[in-house]
Amino acid sequence: MADVWAGVATPALLLDRDRLIANIARMQARAADLGVTLRPHQKTAKSRQVADLIGADAIAVSTMAEARYFAGAGYTDILYAVALGPARVDQIQRLEQEGVDIQVVIDSRQALEYTPEVGTWIEIDCDGRRSGISPGSDELLELAARLGERLRGVMTHAGAAYDGRTPEELAGWAERERSAVVTAAGRIRSIGIELEGVSVGSTPTALHARHLAGVTEMRPGVFVFGDTFQAGIGTCRLEDIACSVLATVIGVRPDGYVIDAGALALSLDRSTAGTDHGFGLVGDVDGNQLPGWRVQRVTQEHGIVSPGPGAGPLRLGARLRVFPNHACLTAACHDEYVVVSNGVVVDRWDRCRGW
Amino acid sequence: MADVWAGVATPALLLDRDRLIANIARMQARAADLGVTLRPHQKTAKSRQVADLIGADAIAVSTMAEARYFAGAGYTDILYAVALGPARVDQIQRLEQEGVDIQVVIDSRQALEYTPEVGTWIEIDCDGRRSGISPGSDELLELAARLGERLRGVMTHAGAAYDGRTPEELAGWAERERSAVVTAAGRIRSIGIELEGVSVGSTPTALHARHLAGVTEMRPGVFVFGDTFQAGIGTCRLEDIACSVLATVIGVRPDGYVIDAGALALSLDRSTAGTDHGFGLVGDVDGNQLPGWRVQRVTQEHGIVSPGPGAGPLRLGARLRVFPNHACLTAACHDEYVVVSNGVVVDRWDRCRGW
Repeated sequence: MADVWAGVATPALLLDRDRLIANIARMQARAADLGVTLRPHQKTAKSRQVADLIGADAIAVSTMAEARYFAGAGYTDILYAVALGPARVDQIQRLEQEGVDIQVVIDSRQALEYTPEVGTWIEIDCDGRRSGISPGSDELLELAARLGERLRGVMTHAGAAYDGRTPEELAGWAERERSAVVTAAGRIRSIGIELEGVSVGSTPTALHARHLAGVTEMRPGVFVFGDTFQAGIGTCRLEDIACSVLATVIGVRPDGYVIDAGALALSLDRSTAGTDHGFGLVGDVDGNQLPGWRVQRVTQEHGIVSPGPGAGPLRLGARLRVFPNHACLTAACHDEYVVVSNGVVVDRWDRCRGW
Repeated sequence: MADVWAGVATPALLLDRDRLIANIARMQARAADLGVTLRPHQKTAKSRQVADLIGADAIAVSTMAEARYFAGAGYTDILYAVALGPARVDQIQRLEQEGVDIQVVIDSRQALEYTPEVGTWIEIDCDGRRSGISPGSDELLELAARLGERLRGVMTHAGAAYDGRTPEELAGWAERERSAVVTAAGRIRSIGIELEGVSVGSTPTALHARHLAGVTEMRPGVFVFGDTFQAGIGTCRLEDIACSVLATVIGVRPDGYVIDAGALALSLDRSTAGTDHGFGLVGDVDGNQLPGWRVQRVTQEHGIVSPGPGAGPLRLGARLRVFPNHACLTAACHDEYVVVSNGVVVDRWDRCRGW
């Protein structure tokens, strides 16, 4: 049998198309069940081919580079879901002049001084972590009134949901997201201002919400790939993880194997939920998990794999897959996807990069 | 006064040319003092313009992408200082056919089966951490004999030196590097094999070695930029750090500021020596350290800066610089350098990326 990996230089970012499609279908079904629109956040995959598989009209992005890239791919309803500084205004206006319905978020009076005249969402704080204004504040009503017809809606993101471990905790965070934006929307409507969008979003809260009454859309991102963190909190199974880093064994040690995927190919993320997975769990070249195997240490271009029982010994040149702890960060180390399906390389997909 | 940063979209990787030049001069003087050739490792800057400022004939690289990039920039003496798997052989041979003196490292009999017929260095283990063979082993002599005229020398790298904190500990690691390769070289010469190169290398050991008797070259990398880790172990001062990430304040919180530089712009490296610097120390827009300020938390595209005394309050749109904990990893988040000198943007330099 021909070596299907012969033309793939390692380290390489593999994307299992079949798992990807299943992950997308699962989130689409979830959105339908909850009665909300899916506005997929593109910060994880950053790929037009992945976005096209989801097939949503409206998307969210985390960088202006993503906004330009997806506009170039034909997307016209784009929410830039990060607060903007004054220096970004030119970029926003340029996209708007090209006919893109580019939308921004705002969470303060001061930002109103420079926020461009495009569709604007008020960001609501639901966890005290990062940004947004309180749903009960006077500033909320003042901003809504001053935005006038530009106001598209209210949105929030419970970054703190990533501290949740049990289904109950995650459902609690989903409810905190929901109640924060629904409260904010209600207060705005109560002063006679019409408001359409009520947006929440993260993969853990999307999958654990008990209901989303009053919400119109959700913006999960990492669901397309999953990762060991998400598996740890039960939002996917290990065997659902769609992206991995193909690596080659370049050293054999008494205590394990040296692979050619280190910090620059895997990222340093080890924020796995509950269990320490080192710098990633390890599978065989076909994508089957190897129980007990993980990347124990990394330097810039080297990973040290500690093996579990079975599957060894490996020789120099053997290939392994590393499943990421945090797919967004690992994928960002790479410029393209090597797309595989049924054990065969079927395509190469691009990724956008930068800001 | 015109805003010199107006044309610089944040986050951006700034490179202070004057600090860079001083850092290079310091390492060149150090190499001269120690009586060894400087073979600068390009894994940190990955930039032809930085390499040209050093002006060394021979370089070391950590990826084949660097090897191709620097070959394209006119470098012809290139050591690919990472063990190679069989799949890299074609790439090595292609460079050799283009007239590049591309050299590889080897640390096992098995790798000899496929290592291409180019200049080869035997990697010596001096710290038990990653790769290399023992300087006292029979395998060393066998490899040296079988390599024949291809043998260029012996080389080592004490990654464990990064555990050192005091000048004494770092001098100890420098001596372990030196004695490992000098012992190995002596054993090879004792069986009648000529051997030219005896190579050690890291920035901490280069700067703390008491002497390098018997060594011919050293391969430090991060010295060009420095970082908060290097400052923590005394190999540079905080005010020597030549690269930083320019960021914009996009949120004002009761406990600090939200900036538009998060995990993807700074990296997640927090392996700072001794003191926890969060995800990087913070300076003003001109590059002066702000004592007590640091990046406390990051998400993908956001950093939360906890301020120290003074220099506040900042408004939305204010700019700050973040000094990296680990320059190699932070620089790898970016595709170009915005080069500054005396507070003015003077150039843009490229970086190579990938493998």
